[in-house]
Amino acid sequence: MSLTIRLHLAAAAAPRPASRRRETGRAKLRNARPGAIYHADPLSHLARRPKMLGRDAVRTSPSSVIRSSLIDPDGGVLVDLVVPEKDRALRAKEAAALPRVGLTRIDLEWVHVIGEGWASPLKGFMREEQYLQSLHFNCLRMPDGSVVNMSLPIVLAVDDGTKDAIGSSRDVGMVGPGGDLVAVLRSIEIYKHNKEERIARTWGTTAPGLPYVDEAITPAGNWLIGGDLEVLEPIKYNDGLDHYRLSPKQLRKEFDRRQADAVFAFQLRNPVHNGHALLMNDTRRRLLEMGFKNPILLLHPLGGYTKADDVPLNVRMEQHSKVLEDGVLDPKTTVVSIFPSPMHYAGPTEVQWHAKARINAGANFYIVGRDPAGMGHPTEKRDLYDPDHGKKVLSMAPGLEKLNILPFKVAAYDTVEKKMAFFDPSRAKDFLFISGTKMRTYARNGDNPPDGFMCPGGWEVLVKYYESLQAEETKQQAAVLST
Amino acid sequence: MSLTIRLHLAAAAAPRPASRRRETGRAKLRNARPGAIYHADPLSHLARRPKMLGRDAVRTSPSSVIRSSLIDPDGGVLVDLVVPEKDRALRAKEAAALPRVGLTRIDLEWVHVIGEGWASPLKGFMREEQYLQSLHFNCLRMPDGSVVNMSLPIVLAVDDGTKDAIGSSRDVGMVGPGGDLVAVLRSIEIYKHNKEERIARTWGTTAPGLPYVDEAITPAGNWLIGGDLEVLEPIKYNDGLDHYRLSPKQLRKEFDRRQADAVFAFQLRNPVHNGHALLMNDTRRRLLEMGFKNPILLLHPLGGYTKADDVPLNVRMEQHSKVLEDGVLDPKTTVVSIFPSPMHYAGPTEVQWHAKARINAGANFYIVGRDPAGMGHPTEKRDLYDPDHGKKVLSMAPGLEKLNILPFKVAAYDTVEKKMAFFDPSRAKDFLFISGTKMRTYARNGDNPPDGFMCPGGWEVLVKYYESLQAEETKQQAAVLST
Repeated sequence: MSLTIRLHLAAAAAPRPASRRRETGRAKLRNARPGAIYHADPLSHLARRPKMLGRDAVRTSPSSVIRSSLIDPDGGVLVDLVVPEKDRALRAKEAAALPRVGLTRIDLEWVHVIGEGWASPLKGFMREEQYLQSLHFNCLRMPDGSVVNMSLPIVLAVDDGTKDAIGSSRDVGMVGPGGDLVAVLRSIEIYKHNKEERIARTWGTTAPGLPYVDEAITPAGNWLIGGDLEVLEPIKYNDGLDHYRLSPKQLRKEFDRRQADAVFAFQLRNPVHNGHALLMNDTRRRLLEMGFKNPILLLHPLGGYTKADDVPLNVRMEQHSKVLEDGVLDPKTTVVSIFPSPMHYAGPTEVQWHAKARINAGANFYIVGRDPAGMGHPTEKRDLYDPDHGKKVLSMAPGLEKLNILPFKVAAYDTVEKKMAFFDPSRAKDFLFISGTKMRTYARNGDNPPDGFMCPGGWEVLVKYYESLQAEETKQQAAVLST
Repeated sequence: MSLTIRLHLAAAAAPRPASRRRETGRAKLRNARPGAIYHADPLSHLARRPKMLGRDAVRTSPSSVIRSSLIDPDGGVLVDLVVPEKDRALRAKEAAALPRVGLTRIDLEWVHVIGEGWASPLKGFMREEQYLQSLHFNCLRMPDGSVVNMSLPIVLAVDDGTKDAIGSSRDVGMVGPGGDLVAVLRSIEIYKHNKEERIARTWGTTAPGLPYVDEAITPAGNWLIGGDLEVLEPIKYNDGLDHYRLSPKQLRKEFDRRQADAVFAFQLRNPVHNGHALLMNDTRRRLLEMGFKNPILLLHPLGGYTKADDVPLNVRMEQHSKVLEDGVLDPKTTVVSIFPSPMHYAGPTEVQWHAKARINAGANFYIVGRDPAGMGHPTEKRDLYDPDHGKKVLSMAPGLEKLNILPFKVAAYDTVEKKMAFFDPSRAKDFLFISGTKMRTYARNGDNPPDGFMCPGGWEVLVKYYESLQAEETKQQAAVLST
């Protein structure tokens, strides 16, 4: 797991740290556009090169002035669709008279995502015009001709009955899974939900067994409804984790409060092991070397829908807390927060969404791993995506030019040094790869992983989770046997 | 089949006809970028609006000066990869020493397409970086940050054996289906051919029975080979139609020779009926109304691979000749030429390719029909694509901003006026829709279509073709019965 920054030290057009005057610094970062993608040689010449941090970046010293923003949100203005408190009662009353659309748990997560501006400049569920652009081009064109990245269709499905009930109404009320009116969709447009095409173009396969498809698309209606969203009050889950759910606006404020001069985001949906920590700490070290004075890590676990065998959010959050308590990551330079998006497991298409949403949250650096948002092929014995495609596609994606992308290689356990280390191919036999499956097997069997794989406090959280899972399974088996 | 130009008369940013000075005229056309796609209302606000011809376009009168080009080729320079005559013998000799890759008929068509610059700025079969951009974004980023449209992956597959035989050679020779060395691919890169992903992202389905997939992808190798192409001599088919195969360079010259001040391209893979002719003539009339003095029609039948039940190229070319002979289209203002690309039947993805290639051939207006490059779903009883998506996607496609897109509605036979006419929904019952299938049934049964559907000379060509087809079938049946 060695940061491939090293490969790119010679890059000529590398971005420099923010310079004394904020505007200048930002302009420089923004000018760090990809160079000659076209006709470049394959891997070594990849267009992400100019987005990489170069050695010459060390020359200018970054400003110590507080920045309200290190990177502009997509579209220039952060979208905030939550109705101001003083207007809520009236709006809710008006909304009560509208035809209603029922939301699933995942739909509600999207309402949360759109409402807080993670998908800026998107102001509601996609109309067909936005849907087609997202599906075919992974980006949306803005009125000024510029493009923003938008790789996942963010859409809401309704069935025939709901469509009929809506009739010719211009607006609809949206009812959460608990039965409460949570939002309004205005100036709606209803269009066909061609599930096959949506799945094929988003996942690059139509094989049965894609988790998000099985959960959220196959059972959904044959129509999509787009429009402008109004969220009647902030979305809360009351699961004891809402305080972790900082909106992009809150995150930007927090980065300002900490006087960050660089924010690097780490997206994850797994427990943090020492390999991840090594990478994050190493990234910070490199950013400091380049002249940044106060790079802040956004440790940003995905909090929406995940597949059944992923570690649940509450367990992951407890594990992440321990990692900070145990000092593996420094709380002073780390912000832990939940990213409310559901997971698609759509590899190269989804990683763009993961990166784009973090731009809106104020991150100007994004760490991308091997096979991001990937999984095994649901019906064939292979990875669904080429493990290198995620970072390649991310580096070329339209609308992400202003983001600095930091790719890294796979981490492994160094059996000689007895710690997680950047994999050294020259002594490959010394390294032990501990996959997610292997980690879960250790935890499930009550075995310890090798010393130094994960901080003890964090490991304990996982062991307890798998013990409770086994206890639950045993109880269920007993119940089945006794009937 | 009414030109929807009417819908767009009020468009503010509509392109004007080329003005007195060529550069000014071209700059104006190029500035006709799409406006507010984002957040616009669905159909009526479609972003193609600013590309439409507006009434204010009539104000300036176009130049009578000969233009070498009405529209720049993608990338600024028309690609021409055919080795100059004087170097051919030497190059062929050098190529003979290289490892060899065998080309199918369709591969050879792509060599033709790339070599003549239809895919400018592409200079060879795609390397992975270009392939991924095409697959995910339908466009390629140029070194200067601009994008060109590139919706179809233009790739060459090789099998394991060929890959092994190539070994570490930097260059390969390419051998046509007839066994002759036709081209060289230089600085090659070999990467995985994930057929499932390619199919899903290109067609939006993986259903069995897609013609191009069955013909050219399923039987192809598991590797793709990209590199820079050198074509050893112009590709010829020796089918009596080569004189119709004008290269983009030749077409541009021909438009100059005719002193065209607008070129409107009509892509087709079917016989021309009077509905098509009505549309083309009406387009010309409208362009004249707008102030263009000499709009030239590029009647541009696709000449590469088509599915088995399409009318073969030689029959179509004969039919097209009759249409011009019979005076349905005016030979003075029409250029008939063959577009050498194979057909994907990939709807909204492919129509972008069809339009983009015509930019390179010098067309600055493109007529797009209902369900372009569409077909029936191979396993379900429905159209594979939403018939409106083609023109919508085309109007939003990155890299096609400089092309003026002219959508049209379905033509029908007006049973009252006894001619093909633009469909008038206010008297829908008067109109008879004659599908391709219906037309073929008429021709096959020796029945005549209604008077005025197609010029008699053109119809006769089709009848003869289907008669010969039936004679062939009868002979084959007899042969089967006698064995």
